[in-house]
Amino acid sequence: MDLDVVGIGSPLVDVLATTSEEGISRSGLTRGSMMLVDALRAEEIYGSMGPATEVSGGSAANTMAGVAALGGSAAFVGKVADDVLGRVFTHDIRSTGVQFDPVPVPVPVSGDGTSPGTGRCLVLVTDDGERTMATHLGVAITLAPGDVPEPLVQRGRIVYLEGYLWDLPPAKDALRHAADVAHRHDGSVALSLSDSFCVERHQREFLDLLVDRVDVLFGNEQEIVRLFGARSLDLGVEAAEETGLLVAVTLGDRGAVVTTPRGPVEVPAFPVDDVVDTTGAGDLFAAGFLFGLTHGADPERCAQLGALCASEVIGHLGARPQEDLRDLASRAGLL
Amino acid sequence: MDLDVVGIGSPLVDVLATTSEEGISRSGLTRGSMMLVDALRAEEIYGSMGPATEVSGGSAANTMAGVAALGGSAAFVGKVADDVLGRVFTHDIRSTGVQFDPVPVPVPVSGDGTSPGTGRCLVLVTDDGERTMATHLGVAITLAPGDVPEPLVQRGRIVYLEGYLWDLPPAKDALRHAADVAHRHDGSVALSLSDSFCVERHQREFLDLLVDRVDVLFGNEQEIVRLFGARSLDLGVEAAEETGLLVAVTLGDRGAVVTTPRGPVEVPAFPVDDVVDTTGAGDLFAAGFLFGLTHGADPERCAQLGALCASEVIGHLGARPQEDLRDLASRAGLL
Repeated sequence: MDLDVVGIGSPLVDVLATTSEEGISRSGLTRGSMMLVDALRAEEIYGSMGPATEVSGGSAANTMAGVAALGGSAAFVGKVADDVLGRVFTHDIRSTGVQFDPVPVPVPVSGDGTSPGTGRCLVLVTDDGERTMATHLGVAITLAPGDVPEPLVQRGRIVYLEGYLWDLPPAKDALRHAADVAHRHDGSVALSLSDSFCVERHQREFLDLLVDRVDVLFGNEQEIVRLFGARSLDLGVEAAEETGLLVAVTLGDRGAVVTTPRGPVEVPAFPVDDVVDTTGAGDLFAAGFLFGLTHGADPERCAQLGALCASEVIGHLGARPQEDLRDLASRAGLL
Repeated sequence: MDLDVVGIGSPLVDVLATTSEEGISRSGLTRGSMMLVDALRAEEIYGSMGPATEVSGGSAANTMAGVAALGGSAAFVGKVADDVLGRVFTHDIRSTGVQFDPVPVPVPVSGDGTSPGTGRCLVLVTDDGERTMATHLGVAITLAPGDVPEPLVQRGRIVYLEGYLWDLPPAKDALRHAADVAHRHDGSVALSLSDSFCVERHQREFLDLLVDRVDVLFGNEQEIVRLFGARSLDLGVEAAEETGLLVAVTLGDRGAVVTTPRGPVEVPAFPVDDVVDTTGAGDLFAAGFLFGLTHGADPERCAQLGALCASEVIGHLGARPQEDLRDLASRAGLL
């Protein structure tokens, strides 16, 4: 196993624009959450957005970029189209040092801008740095078991699965398959819950997965509470502990809670001068955590590494690290 | 004439990445300048760049976005392809309030990423905020007289021409034609020298243009010195004065010099806490200057407005304003 983490998810190019509260209301989206939209609806929302910035994203892809930025070895699996955004995504993730060998899906020329292509995530960022997202998955939606190369999965100490993919029936099979391959080869499986609506849609299946296919679980407060049908964070963490898995719950500016053999441990957030854009905070927390886990750190140290990486990414627009995370972690005494 | 400014130039999407000094040397580019490259060379340079951010650019287009952000009325003319980057460019400039009605050029599907498409400008940004650029013009190179709509040009109080276009023979005719149309309808013509190598390549033609087709000239120190074959800035400004045109010379962090009836006047730069990326500084100087000129300001006030707009754009990555320029100008007592 020569790779620390193999991530599987939807390759997306983020289209970021700052927006007023009125802009969010007008868009019909739910503030702070992610909604899946079709190509036409994506065009509508895009048309109402201000000047935007395009930057590679995708939840699991962001996490893999973070692992690589810490000096870890990572690979990514997901489907892009043979178009400009597909080339942008491929360039960007490779240039962070992540292995990515896609077979781009050919796209027909439709001329109306709505032919299936590489997925896009429209990100509306409000003044407080909160992001509201509308994702058009494009060809990422076609991920199927045959798209997950077994030899690559076998090389990973941890296989990291993006919860968002549970919205896509063939992708579910692909992820279950990847989890089984990993376990057969002594790898571990980590799952990110991704989004509270996603948890609501798939609560039963996620709980089933935890029983035999998942070793490490990531979620924020809302997601964990919803997953376990708990009435409070404390009860949610209690339920998480009972699963026996390694569970990390992110709590925004209050830091994170992680399960350990001696009970749940709280880890504070790293102070951030100016929160610009929270996109990628959870993804980068997972990156730091997974890097720690594959480099002998205990759960508390893993969560500290996660908190540090999250603090870097919310200080600027875009969901991938811009600073040298390895250097930051080393200066913070975490490496 | 219901439009303040009609800008003509190359629509480009900027592909920005931070780079080390070694990265600049390896790229074979000249630090601080712009080089035109073909599709293959563009792919090569892109391949060696780190993770990038895509954001709409193009010199004259940036200027028009700035005029609109100040509350002026502006239109832009230039050629985009019927591809993702063309739609990105069109969305972004329209959402700033600039009128842009392109006829997108169809593109064949080649699959190798090198088919002609919407132009791209690869921008390598070093620690000091300096930018080194490689531009692949794509379909922008096909701009010809027939692409410049006369009725639109007639509506502009000022027609603003991008010097970069002088590298393209059919575009030259398009710009000469636009200048003649403007003058026939009592409009003025402004020219940006764009780049010192561009001035070197076209010195004779630019000097000829000044005689009868240009009323307002923009250039930085290097460009003005080179245009007039002067041995110092002072001699360059003296030569500029002798043309009888309104000439504005930008001097980076030393501000600008502008010709006035009572001789050249120096205007200081606005202080900037942290210079992140100088891309667009000259373009936004021109925006503030042109807005002033079409709203009754004297040359000194025009240059102050230019300096203010330039100071905003160098404080962040990307060549278009992110703050409300009208509000900034008003708080600075310039409106």
